[in-house]
Amino acid sequence: MFRPQIKVLDCTIRDGGLANDSHFSMETVRAVYKAACAAGIDYVELGYRNSKEMFSPDEFGPWRFCDEDKLRQAVDGIDPNGTKVAIMQDAHKAVAEDILPADESVVDLIRIATYVKDIDKAIHLARNATERGYECTINIMAISHEGYPFLDEALQQIEEETSAKAVYIVDSFGALYSEEVHALVEKYQKYLKTKEVGAHFHNNRQLAFANTIEAIRKGANYLDGTLFGLGRAAGNCPLELLMGFLKNPKFDIEPVLKVIADTVMPLGENLDWGYHIPYMITGMLDEHPRTAMAFMKNGDNHDYVSFYRQFLDDLTD
Amino acid sequence: MFRPQIKVLDCTIRDGGLANDSHFSMETVRAVYKAACAAGIDYVELGYRNSKEMFSPDEFGPWRFCDEDKLRQAVDGIDPNGTKVAIMQDAHKAVAEDILPADESVVDLIRIATYVKDIDKAIHLARNATERGYECTINIMAISHEGYPFLDEALQQIEEETSAKAVYIVDSFGALYSEEVHALVEKYQKYLKTKEVGAHFHNNRQLAFANTIEAIRKGANYLDGTLFGLGRAAGNCPLELLMGFLKNPKFDIEPVLKVIADTVMPLGENLDWGYHIPYMITGMLDEHPRTAMAFMKNGDNHDYVSFYRQFLDDLTD
Repeated sequence: MFRPQIKVLDCTIRDGGLANDSHFSMETVRAVYKAACAAGIDYVELGYRNSKEMFSPDEFGPWRFCDEDKLRQAVDGIDPNGTKVAIMQDAHKAVAEDILPADESVVDLIRIATYVKDIDKAIHLARNATERGYECTINIMAISHEGYPFLDEALQQIEEETSAKAVYIVDSFGALYSEEVHALVEKYQKYLKTKEVGAHFHNNRQLAFANTIEAIRKGANYLDGTLFGLGRAAGNCPLELLMGFLKNPKFDIEPVLKVIADTVMPLGENLDWGYHIPYMITGMLDEHPRTAMAFMKNGDNHDYVSFYRQFLDDLTD
Repeated sequence: MFRPQIKVLDCTIRDGGLANDSHFSMETVRAVYKAACAAGIDYVELGYRNSKEMFSPDEFGPWRFCDEDKLRQAVDGIDPNGTKVAIMQDAHKAVAEDILPADESVVDLIRIATYVKDIDKAIHLARNATERGYECTINIMAISHEGYPFLDEALQQIEEETSAKAVYIVDSFGALYSEEVHALVEKYQKYLKTKEVGAHFHNNRQLAFANTIEAIRKGANYLDGTLFGLGRAAGNCPLELLMGFLKNPKFDIEPVLKVIADTVMPLGENLDWGYHIPYMITGMLDEHPRTAMAFMKNGDNHDYVSFYRQFLDDLTD
């Protein structure tokens, strides 16, 4: 039995862009888009539309900005098969003026990523997106660091002040256990009477897929995954696992397996996402993965005990 | 809050021995044993005591047989710190005569691995173990292929005919979802009024840790893990994740992190356990991983679609 309301979003290029400063080749992006379309994925997120004032185009690749002409090149000639295009704007790093009217764009969905402290910026961008004719979601990052009352107030504000279709629980640090997922879905549902709950989980402790299942059980209908889990640090819920779990007959796992083989595995030569002890440690300690990512850059350093102890020292206050 | 009844068993060498025909160096085994002792792990399983009639010592390493003198070399001079030594016997590949009286052995716990069809052999070996003075558990393998009424009858038989301390749910194929874990723990508890329930999960779909947590929630108290998940194919519940979850103050994660860095990571040069698409596919299809392991031996073959389709063809009957 399947739940027809469920929407799956592939964010391989967008979240993976945090691992390579959004430097994917056009060939890679087209292959991912084509596979998502063939697999019946509901949305495919091709990057950020963040501000060139805040990110230098000399340093970051095209998928940090998703200029309209780049997106058109990415999708050109590929049968969308019902799959919609998404992009993300960071509430504190993007501007409303960068969004064209929807009828001039190949983009269907704009996702606004925000911390609770930036919720007013996020609401501004979300209203801008829907006013210009797009679907919109709001993704509340670092959820394991957010709590009562500010998270509750933010959810209430989103409910009252936006037309976002869904609001995501974003476990940026891979720190949540399933009981916390349950409690968060319930909290979101309490405030979001007119919106869906979304789930975006990181895989620091190999719980991204399990937590996604738990969110589904509690009623979350917007689900993020990435191909072979490609994403920042430990990566995300692997899309292929999610498709293996979902029973919706519209999905076809074969194009996903094929693009992993042909396109994603070769990326592993230069990108090292997945389960590693430093990421596990930051997840366990509910810390941002940036220190772990810095540690991982020195591939020969396996002194995990010292890496772990620095947090214990930090915590002594 | 922690549950004092919980017992953690490290089976790195035993389960990992299925990936390398039990060819670990003495140095590796001593390092794993020493770390488990320092970390406060309750049991450390150093291999199989299977029959040399059924496994050739020319082909298999010493940890397939765990001769007493080998075990003594492995533990010599290391402070056990309360950690007990376990070995495993396969019900259909081991003989009772290979077990010394307990007071002549460094072994504390004998685990009998069995399929339901071999339950009478398993009970024979289990009774032999307890009669010779050992603790004993029974591990029911391939549990996702076992059901009513034979599994129920086997559980009842174990309850009535053995002094085993615990009976494990062994998800050999990495095929279980948490709802199935719940149902199995309940079923075990229904029959095993005088015994604990154990959890041994494989990681084909990155659910081994999550399923272990779910088993704990339902009351399982005997928990298996391996260092960095080392084990056959996709491997096992990573011990370091389990220790990060458990609150029992007797555990110290640092020796675990250290032995992973110093001993387990170097093994990765010759052993390729962990999350890979072929293992994910056999887990999803509830199949033995042997076909995936054969596929993985040709590291250049990424034709996952053909690998997947062969099972679909097989299933057409």
